[in-house]
Amino acid sequence: MAQQPVRMGMVGGGRDAFIGAVHRMAATLDGSMELVAGALSSTPEKSIASGADLGLPEDRAYPTWEAMLESEAARPAEERMEAVVIVTPNHVHHSVAKAAMEAGFHVVCDKPLVLNAAEADDLVATQERTGKVFAVTYNYTGYPMVKEARHLVRSGAIGDVRKVIVEYNQGWLATPLEASGQKQADWRTDPTRAGAGGAMGDIGSHAENLVSYVTGLGITEFASDVTTHVEGRSIDDDTSVLLRFDNGGRGILTASQVCPGCLNDLRLRVWGSTGGLCWHQEDPNTLTQTSLEGPDRIHHRADGSLCDAATAVTRLPGGHPEAFIEAFANIYRGAAAAIRAGRDDGETHDYPTVHDGARGVKFIGAVIAGGGDGWKRFEE
Amino acid sequence: MAQQPVRMGMVGGGRDAFIGAVHRMAATLDGSMELVAGALSSTPEKSIASGADLGLPEDRAYPTWEAMLESEAARPAEERMEAVVIVTPNHVHHSVAKAAMEAGFHVVCDKPLVLNAAEADDLVATQERTGKVFAVTYNYTGYPMVKEARHLVRSGAIGDVRKVIVEYNQGWLATPLEASGQKQADWRTDPTRAGAGGAMGDIGSHAENLVSYVTGLGITEFASDVTTHVEGRSIDDDTSVLLRFDNGGRGILTASQVCPGCLNDLRLRVWGSTGGLCWHQEDPNTLTQTSLEGPDRIHHRADGSLCDAATAVTRLPGGHPEAFIEAFANIYRGAAAAIRAGRDDGETHDYPTVHDGARGVKFIGAVIAGGGDGWKRFEE
Amino acid sequence: MAQQPVRMGMVGGGRDAFIGAVHRMAATLDGSMELVAGALSSTPEKSIASGADLGLPEDRAYPTWEAMLESEAARPAEERMEAVVIVTPNHVHHSVAKAAMEAGFHVVCDKPLVLNAAEADDLVATQERTGKVFAVTYNYTGYPMVKEARHLVRSGAIGDVRKVIVEYNQGWLATPLEASGQKQADWRTDPTRAGAGGAMGDIGSHAENLVSYVTGLGITEFASDVTTHVEGRSIDDDTSVLLRFDNGGRGILTASQVCPGCLNDLRLRVWGSTGGLCWHQEDPNTLTQTSLEGPDRIHHRADGSLCDAATAVTRLPGGHPEAFIEAFANIYRGAAAAIRAGRDDGETHDYPTVHDGARGVKFIGAVIAGGGDGWKRFEE
Amino acid sequence: MAQQPVRMGMVGGGRDAFIGAVHRMAATLDGSMELVAGALSSTPEKSIASGADLGLPEDRAYPTWEAMLESEAARPAEERMEAVVIVTPNHVHHSVAKAAMEAGFHVVCDKPLVLNAAEADDLVATQERTGKVFAVTYNYTGYPMVKEARHLVRSGAIGDVRKVIVEYNQGWLATPLEASGQKQADWRTDPTRAGAGGAMGDIGSHAENLVSYVTGLGITEFASDVTTHVEGRSIDDDTSVLLRFDNGGRGILTASQVCPGCLNDLRLRVWGSTGGLCWHQEDPNTLTQTSLEGPDRIHHRADGSLCDAATAVTRLPGGHPEAFIEAFANIYRGAAAAIRAGRDDGETHDYPTVHDGARGVKFIGAVIAGGGDGWKRFEE
Repeated sequence: MAQQPVRMGMVGGGRDAFIGAVHRMAATLDGSMELVAGALSSTPEKSIASGADLGLPEDRAYPTWEAMLESEAARPAEERMEAVVIVTPNHVHHSVAKAAMEAGFHVVCDKPLVLNAAEADDLVATQERTGKVFAVTYNYTGYPMVKEARHLVRSGAIGDVRKVIVEYNQGWLATPLEASGQKQADWRTDPTRAGAGGAMGDIGSHAENLVSYVTGLGITEFASDVTTHVEGRSIDDDTSVLLRFDNGGRGILTASQVCPGCLNDLRLRVWGSTGGLCWHQEDPNTLTQTSLEGPDRIHHRADGSLCDAATAVTRLPGGHPEAFIEAFANIYRGAAAAIRAGRDDGETHDYPTVHDGARGVKFIGAVIAGGGDGWKRFEE
Repeated sequence: MAQQPVRMGMVGGGRDAFIGAVHRMAATLDGSMELVAGALSSTPEKSIASGADLGLPEDRAYPTWEAMLESEAARPAEERMEAVVIVTPNHVHHSVAKAAMEAGFHVVCDKPLVLNAAEADDLVATQERTGKVFAVTYNYTGYPMVKEARHLVRSGAIGDVRKVIVEYNQGWLATPLEASGQKQADWRTDPTRAGAGGAMGDIGSHAENLVSYVTGLGITEFASDVTTHVEGRSIDDDTSVLLRFDNGGRGILTASQVCPGCLNDLRLRVWGSTGGLCWHQEDPNTLTQTSLEGPDRIHHRADGSLCDAATAVTRLPGGHPEAFIEAFANIYRGAAAAIRAGRDDGETHDYPTVHDGARGVKFIGAVIAGGGDGWKRFEE
Repeated sequence: MAQQPVRMGMVGGGRDAFIGAVHRMAATLDGSMELVAGALSSTPEKSIASGADLGLPEDRAYPTWEAMLESEAARPAEERMEAVVIVTPNHVHHSVAKAAMEAGFHVVCDKPLVLNAAEADDLVATQERTGKVFAVTYNYTGYPMVKEARHLVRSGAIGDVRKVIVEYNQGWLATPLEASGQKQADWRTDPTRAGAGGAMGDIGSHAENLVSYVTGLGITEFASDVTTHVEGRSIDDDTSVLLRFDNGGRGILTASQVCPGCLNDLRLRVWGSTGGLCWHQEDPNTLTQTSLEGPDRIHHRADGSLCDAATAVTRLPGGHPEAFIEAFANIYRGAAAAIRAGRDDGETHDYPTVHDGARGVKFIGAVIAGGGDGWKRFEE
Repeated sequence: MAQQPVRMGMVGGGRDAFIGAVHRMAATLDGSMELVAGALSSTPEKSIASGADLGLPEDRAYPTWEAMLESEAARPAEERMEAVVIVTPNHVHHSVAKAAMEAGFHVVCDKPLVLNAAEADDLVATQERTGKVFAVTYNYTGYPMVKEARHLVRSGAIGDVRKVIVEYNQGWLATPLEASGQKQADWRTDPTRAGAGGAMGDIGSHAENLVSYVTGLGITEFASDVTTHVEGRSIDDDTSVLLRFDNGGRGILTASQVCPGCLNDLRLRVWGSTGGLCWHQEDPNTLTQTSLEGPDRIHHRADGSLCDAATAVTRLPGGHPEAFIEAFANIYRGAAAAIRAGRDDGETHDYPTVHDGARGVKFIGAVIAGGGDGWKRFEE
């Protein structure tokens, strides 16, 4: 018999939100989780109305997340919420996540994990103390071809990694969109709610995680240039970073939200001593592998030759494209499996952990703080 | 408040099936439908076991579809199954669909609709008599960029259509896979279960539907070449057709399952007197538009300039790719809306109807029957 | 010491012509030939003026091709023109080519060879009688990656050929351009100067040759649809053909000049029992090879793994693209080598012969004559 | 009457050389120049033998470049060499170029111009003193679509430039190829012959020039990371640079020769306040333009909508690809026009000048010297 869906309560993600709906589709696509409760907005009335929109029972559409934690903890075990999914703006993550774990709930939290290193360390400590499962939705690592890339690098298919170029370019903040009151732009350009990083926090964070997931390398030094192009904006909208890795490899990371025409243009290229890999999020079902000579190889999802980790998260035959929601669902699948297994083990269940989240927060902070100052050391 | 999910019962789609799981993900992705009953296999024991796998209550995991229709019809209206989803091999479609409508249920049926023109006409008559909603899952028309293509053609953006090339190439039957007992290959190469068409029925049918959906043109004449390349196979695995349309336009349709390296390579190109369009299913989030001179235009899903029909079926911002399951879900969304509206209206709710299905069956039959015989007239 | 350039005289290609300049660049790029004489226009004054434009000595800028043949034949051997290059509209090819061979000159002739089968047979007979080298500039076979495709097919890399799709689409005649007096459109749409085929003759001819060169298969039967979309035009502008090959393989050939946005869109796809190939003239430095499973392979010109025939006609390292002129020059290189070797041997020196040209003319004629009539046999 | 070819003498480019043959094809493709003399190797015997290979008269195949300058200067004006083309390893450029100008000859010199800033300043001074035409073959700016990119940026089509990413990646030095004695690798990895920069000098130099040509922006600050990955190599094989421009724009430049599978992968992306551009040297006939919303535009060479500068250097209709040699020939075309016009005017005749070359040398030097040291100011 199939695994029972994990009962989840969602914080944030009500009316007008974007990412909450994605989480709900991702969580339920494979029956990994099911929504049983919600505190879907910071405004109690909106929170309750949003719960009704989603068909939640009246007594589980809570006005506040505090109420949800308290009330759910009091329910009988067999119907009680098991995991809290946090899809609010960043500044809310820490309090909810900490309280959720302390109240006995597992956590799925959007990225970046929290606002700063202190909050990150505190969540790591809380997770270690409580032992709850904690997944951070670095969703791009959920793509099968990213798992194939990881497998190829880790199994030596391209030799020792020498050069990494990771780019995450968007164009939607090329104009002062926040001035129009657009909700997504508003909080993402406000350091009190987004954290130190604008482009660097919102998307550069994904780029750092993708490199780490695929290569396993640690960043030891960096030099960054942190820029705000749009007048009046109080956070970076274009950040570039030179990277040095612990194996001597070199890298470039760039995250910009002022590149008109770029939609969600996350690209990763890795070259080693004997070959290279190239993956592009907007064309996620292929992975290009190159070598010292001879033809390039274009791997396709489900082409009959992929690694187990990639195959395990594939639903459809080759040529039947899977995409963003499916990749996102793979994170939920891993988190749910860990919850059912009763152990926070991102390695076995293939999901990003609180440690990945904490490293990401520290990297964002370091890059922003060191912007324009030349080379800096980075320690997790 | 959001629309209540339509309660569906599934026929076929149990253990070892492929497309049943896709239907379930598609039906539930947006909450269009929910699975409440099933007769998931032609083998009663397997049917019941498959129901348990999917978490169906024991009394709604039926041994046969006849039992499901009878038992569900007897349930109280508020919990009774509302629609029957048919995902069996083709030869089962007609009986189930007809009985379902006659028992008062709406129908969602996989393609091709039925085995032959007589069965098709009978289902059309039954639908007209009963008035039930009937959707055929020509899922490729669910893609937003296909809807944009339709909009551009219908609004005159490329002038009068002169030339259409539609191709659907796969490679998975390049070897005699059916001899190995592989289930999908087995029935698809058996004319008693698949119908007259092999490649033409399984995938050529989608190609015909795609052309019709996008251009609105009727096929008046054709010349076909129907070939079986793999020795011992009793059905076509490679069919090519020259087409003439009712506006004087010309076309080529080709469907092959013996093209190694082609995964699910459905491509549509349409040229009119002033421009052209190109869409490729494996890269579904873009649509190329060309004109008499000057640059090509690459439209992206959610790039801020698409038509209402495309925008209505988009879930994510541009650059966050949507794919096969999401397109499939759009068919379910339309069917569910029609069911809630109480009227079989594919035009308003944007889903393929029993009439589209019937035309497809007749076209398959004509192409196969006319193979190698020169030009033939085609009348729906 | 390098081979001495072959001394060539050109017929056609004067002021306002397009292809003459291409021939001159192609002939001289590698020093295969040098221009020593010309009868560059059918108008004597223009012919002489065009010669001056090109820096020909006054006494070798001839008013007519007849004068050129006569006068050059009378020159001393060491300075005498050796080859006649014919770049006129098609209706002039036969007379010039025949007279040139009979006057002792080798011939390089543009395609299609002549207007009809009778003229083609006559040139074949003349070539056989005189033994002169005769090259037809089916220039697309000059591309290195086309030679690699030929090598792969011929060496069994994709198994037995089952399906061929060759397309040659352009858009420049989507409007009645000939009505404006545009010179290229004018003669190409006039059957008395172009021959029976419009799109089929001008570009379909290249498509047929490309298939023959790469696969070596003979066409045994075909069914064609020959269409004129632009009102008032007296020749086909869109022709589609179903093909059957002598090994049982099947094919589709389409040639259209009314596809807006298509520039010079020649594409060849070939699938065999174990793999496939795809080549696109507008991206000529790559060749995609597919197989029954596993990754696609993208071969690059000069990637260190290509066949001798491809390597032999490569001038630059990989990634330094070569293109149309270079491919065209490869035909000249082969013809010049044959001339220096003193033997008309297209197989050894890798250029298209009068036999290829004759087969092309017959195929054009058959396709046009058989348009809309169902299946026809084809014999060279 | 067409312009007479400029009579050129070549220094370097004999047997075993690579780029000399490219220069000769480029110089003669359009009849811009003709080879009349040569000192084709630093070894006198090889120099003379190479001249014979190329068909030079015995008395103009010189043993040394000094002999060529002296002897040619003494010839009558109407047959005398007019320009010296320098295609030797970099350390030879300065002496030859200086002496050539002083002896009254124009110069075409390969890049990078010279070994260091002092040599560069000296050549600039010599050019200013002698007034001779001096072209540096930054050949990638010869591509029509690069000229279109320049036109679009300069005419405001993408607004104010905010972000530039220029990459030039190759893989041929991923192994210690120089240890095998391969001639191209040998001198390019030897700082005494190549100059301070390895990857940065050989290809990074092109990248810098491309950015300057297209955007017109000056680099004011940079931070670089200069790396040698291959053990035993005494020069950088992978350099990355963060850039700041004089308008406040930001950039990334990376040049690597250790990226296996990258052939000659030069890419330029530029984003401004209202749009973006993307060009890729390996697919040089297209240019992608993006905007704040709506479709991307793919410009094609000769698509009927390009600027004059692009159109002026186009030989073939759209879809008939032009490539590396043709772009290179465009530099020669400009230089020859300037020579015939009697004035060193790179702006009017659209070729890179000694000033561009000098700036490039200084940038290479600064980047290498500043490697790993944090932010540095750059002044030309």
